Amino acid sequence: MNTAIDFYFDFSSPYGYFASAKIDALAAKYGRTVAWRPILLGIVFKTTGGRPLPELPLKGEYVRSDFERSARFHGIPYRTPIAFPVGTMSAVRAFWWLQATDPAKAVALAKALYRAYFVDGANISDTGEVIKSAQGIGLGADEVAAGINDPAVKEKVKMEIASAIARNVFGSPYVIVDNEPFWGVDRFDQLERWLQGPF
Amino acid sequence: MNTAIDFYFDFSSPYGYFASAKIDALAAKYGRTVAWRPILLGIVFKTTGGRPLPELPLKGEYVRSDFERSARFHGIPYRTPIAFPVGTMSAVRAFWWLQATDPAKAVALAKALYRAYFVDGANISDTGEVIKSAQGIGLGADEVAAGINDPAVKEKVKMEIASAIARNVFGSPYVIVDNEPFWGVDRFDQLERWLQGPF
Repeated sequence: MNTAIDFYFDFSSPYGYFASAKIDALAAKYGRTVAWRPILLGIVFKTTGGRPLPELPLKGEYVRSDFERSARFHGIPYRTPIAFPVGTMSAVRAFWWLQATDPAKAVALAKALYRAYFVDGANISDTGEVIKSAQGIGLGADEVAAGINDPAVKEKVKMEIASAIARNVFGSPYVIVDNEPFWGVDRFDQLERWLQGPF
Repeated sequence: MNTAIDFYFDFSSPYGYFASAKIDALAAKYGRTVAWRPILLGIVFKTTGGRPLPELPLKGEYVRSDFERSARFHGIPYRTPIAFPVGTMSAVRAFWWLQATDPAKAVALAKALYRAYFVDGANISDTGEVIKSAQGIGLGADEVAAGINDPAVKEKVKMEIASAIARNVFGSPYVIVDNEPFWGVDRFDQLERWLQGPF
């Protein structure tokens, strides 16, 4: 029985962005599908005591350079955002609003948001930028704005993040396949081996 | 001009242990040598505010499982130590004592200590176990004990750790080649690419 791969990520996470460029092809290679699950690491960190990487002493300086080198290594376009990291509540709500009716288009929106933030320099913590990205894939500004403010969508986002925490998701990207967790795009080598068969 | 690769590690670090099984062959492939540099992450963490991975909420549980899966992935023998992590002051001192007169044998000692801790279940925070590992590669118990207690060796260890902190070493393994830092055995793919030529 092949089940979907759960792909947890934060829209402000460079490593999540790199993973987003690889996950679909990797899953397809092994006959799997991907359930894209954007979360808000800021809320997760309140439970886990985690802190954004760039704020950590020494490690912060290292990862900023590692983001850029990793982008070159993986051959993925990347520009360090001017505002980083940022809260992405509107982006996450827009995704889950759209996901309820059109999961494939929600994935397209996720990719557009990542591109806006990590390539085009847009600050996607701004709801206006989220709407622009949505318009770029053919959605209407009014429907997106209404979706972002829909109480049912807000509730769905809360539930998704609570569910992620309950599954021990503490970082981005975080992939769970057949209950096996893989943290980081640098575990995609082990993820691929696992998709060939548990080891 | 080919310079040595600086390989920083903590004797209580599983990822450092995995790296130790790979670093010499990787360096040799590109005509490089390796300067093995054991440090004490506990002292580094006092500067960086870092904490041992296993103590972190959620992450702690994940990494314990990741240690075992990574060992299988890399094909390296590994048993989770009963006492973990531990302080390894005697091990570090024994290494640097020996390194002053016989660098190659110091590397052999480092490998023996890692094997003792991560394969044979010895608690290498115990000076007696460090001496046993040293005896296993042909050293005398008395000379090793004297080396561990030599004030000059103690001073050398302090200097090494201060130098590592000054170079922003905040984890294990941490490799620096031509001033380019690589944190984690999961950056050995980027390290190898770098050894082929900066990118």
